[in-house]
Amino acid sequence: MRAGPSQDEIRRQNLGALLRYVHVHGATTRAELTTALGLNRSTIGALTADLAGAGLVSEGTPKETGRAGRPSLVVRPESDRVHAYAYSIEVDRLRAARIGLGGAVLDRRELDRPRGLTAAEAAPLLAGAVKEMQQSAPADAVCVGAGVAVCGMVRRDDGLVRLGPTTGWVDEPIGAALGAELGCDVPVTVGNVADVAAFAEHARGAAAGCDNVIYLYGDVGVGAGIIAGGRRLTGHGGYGGEVGHMVVVRDGAPCECGSRGCWETEIGEYALLRAAGRSDARGRDALLAVFDAADRGDLRAQTAVRQAGDWLGFGVANLVNIFNPEMVIFGGGMRDLYLASAAQVRSRLNSVALPACLEHVRLRTPKLGDDAALIGAAELAFERLLADPLDAG
Amino acid sequence: MRAGPSQDEIRRQNLGALLRYVHVHGATTRAELTTALGLNRSTIGALTADLAGAGLVSEGTPKETGRAGRPSLVVRPESDRVHAYAYSIEVDRLRAARIGLGGAVLDRRELDRPRGLTAAEAAPLLAGAVKEMQQSAPADAVCVGAGVAVCGMVRRDDGLVRLGPTTGWVDEPIGAALGAELGCDVPVTVGNVADVAAFAEHARGAAAGCDNVIYLYGDVGVGAGIIAGGRRLTGHGGYGGEVGHMVVVRDGAPCECGSRGCWETEIGEYALLRAAGRSDARGRDALLAVFDAADRGDLRAQTAVRQAGDWLGFGVANLVNIFNPEMVIFGGGMRDLYLASAAQVRSRLNSVALPACLEHVRLRTPKLGDDAALIGAAELAFERLLADPLDAG
Repeated sequence: MRAGPSQDEIRRQNLGALLRYVHVHGATTRAELTTALGLNRSTIGALTADLAGAGLVSEGTPKETGRAGRPSLVVRPESDRVHAYAYSIEVDRLRAARIGLGGAVLDRRELDRPRGLTAAEAAPLLAGAVKEMQQSAPADAVCVGAGVAVCGMVRRDDGLVRLGPTTGWVDEPIGAALGAELGCDVPVTVGNVADVAAFAEHARGAAAGCDNVIYLYGDVGVGAGIIAGGRRLTGHGGYGGEVGHMVVVRDGAPCECGSRGCWETEIGEYALLRAAGRSDARGRDALLAVFDAADRGDLRAQTAVRQAGDWLGFGVANLVNIFNPEMVIFGGGMRDLYLASAAQVRSRLNSVALPACLEHVRLRTPKLGDDAALIGAAELAFERLLADPLDAG
Repeated sequence: MRAGPSQDEIRRQNLGALLRYVHVHGATTRAELTTALGLNRSTIGALTADLAGAGLVSEGTPKETGRAGRPSLVVRPESDRVHAYAYSIEVDRLRAARIGLGGAVLDRRELDRPRGLTAAEAAPLLAGAVKEMQQSAPADAVCVGAGVAVCGMVRRDDGLVRLGPTTGWVDEPIGAALGAELGCDVPVTVGNVADVAAFAEHARGAAAGCDNVIYLYGDVGVGAGIIAGGRRLTGHGGYGGEVGHMVVVRDGAPCECGSRGCWETEIGEYALLRAAGRSDARGRDALLAVFDAADRGDLRAQTAVRQAGDWLGFGVANLVNIFNPEMVIFGGGMRDLYLASAAQVRSRLNSVALPACLEHVRLRTPKLGDDAALIGAAELAFERLLADPLDAG
């Protein structure tokens, strides 16, 4: 029911659209921007001058094109100077990165995470990593925000981690803990790892240009980041996408969430390791060892992988019927499982999914790999800047 | 990545916002419009004059308020004159209505539908009903479009009904058939019944003001209209929301879609009638007879209703975990089933849904009742007018 925007809002939208364009596409000529944004040359010139004045972009001549005539000036994001900090809190490790406007990972640190580490314990470790990176950043560097990707259910309003069954977190204020530890005034935005990875793959990865995407992410737990009609599906409180807790076996195996027969009890790390007779093993390397054993002819490993792959296809088919996506991306441990059992996944998908829902679905692995969580966390931080470049810059 | 709008686009947006406001809220004073749309008084005056000039709204003095001073003029939608035709094609009946701008049902017709009727056979029956209604409409009435609600999977691009298992339709071009039959130049828009009913309940029913809603609709088949982040979830081809074909029992009972164990094989009309020992019965009256028998102590009917209610709660719990909605509405036969088994629905929902996903969910029955399909079909037709009032009006 909103009326059209005011002149100020239009200018803000135009500044945001231009900055977003070079943030996603990199160096772009003024001529391309004119076409892509549907604005005239003088408007593009004025917007660029404003953004350059704020230190967010720079202009220069393009590389030699070999063509005659005066080349169109190129607008570049100030990637080395303007940056965000990104954190990823995973079951077995903590990661931190400094990511420039434009999406380049400029610096990174990785630490082991003992299972059971609380938010209060994780924050100083991550803050320490950031302080190291700050020292190696240029003197005139500007941090516009920080984003955190975490395995768990994140309340949209304030970033409280309500429940992270695989990290053992309940009501952990990781955003506030990190903000206090860093002692800086940049806002810290927290998101679920599948949501932020989906965001990154949609912005600049495998799903660029796709409006309806399911990004499935799994290790011990399984969740999805969902793009519907070009926008992130968050749900009312921010908890949308908990597909790992879609029950696939009524009154089935107990799940860490307290329910039974959840999808992740059939396709998660523990399920696969148990089925392969390796209940005592944990972590990604243990999982990769199962796929390796299956490859080398271990019958028990092969059966475990086939069963999990069948369940993977089963759940994906349900999601295809519910969302009618154009792409499903398998990330984290789901990538490895999908690659090891693609035949089972496709077979079950073909028998369960409605043909009309399935007809344009492409199955993919992430283009950004494990960096999707970090890049997506940085995108959370950049969103504020892109919404209002001159206010937040 | 879109840049801010041009002056023409802003005017179009403002005209659309004003017309949409009175379409949804009815007669509104200029003063209220100024506040609601965030535009100044002279802009509201100019927009109203343009819309009145096009015959879409009228202005007048409000009813006596008893307050001193000159009353603010009231803007009303031209409900009697500007209208859309709405059709609903259901398993057992065909309905047609003339619905005014503002959402009032001005006239309606209902016909029995023999099961098995094709689109080519249904179109002339519906067109006949419309011709009757045209004769009783005012001489200066203006039809802005027609909308069709149909039980089936509707291709977004052209309204082709790809598959309607319960109507027996495969690739039926009902929109084209109706357009040809009516012989008029108004566009005919086709939508899935659950989608359009959700649209209506969201615009002016139980879900007004809710941004994340699941509207469950069922008779023989079960589907959902989903509102996510305030917008209709359509999926890539328009087939999103086929929740009745979420498989809940792997390798379960055969479903009309060709798969097995779909949710609708546990909660649909046929499942309930079979479980109640009434496999030969069909239709809503037969279903109501089961609920009635259960009420009167028939043990077999009670067991059937309890089982179906348990499965209803089970599937809703999965959808709550996936979508984190703030409201679930039970429409069509699902309304009756929910009312007859609310205890089972809530019990299963509480044991399966994640507490964070469930905490703000309200369970509701439709406010618009059976009219939701017709009103939603009309909303489809009004959308074009509201997007660009002076072009389409």
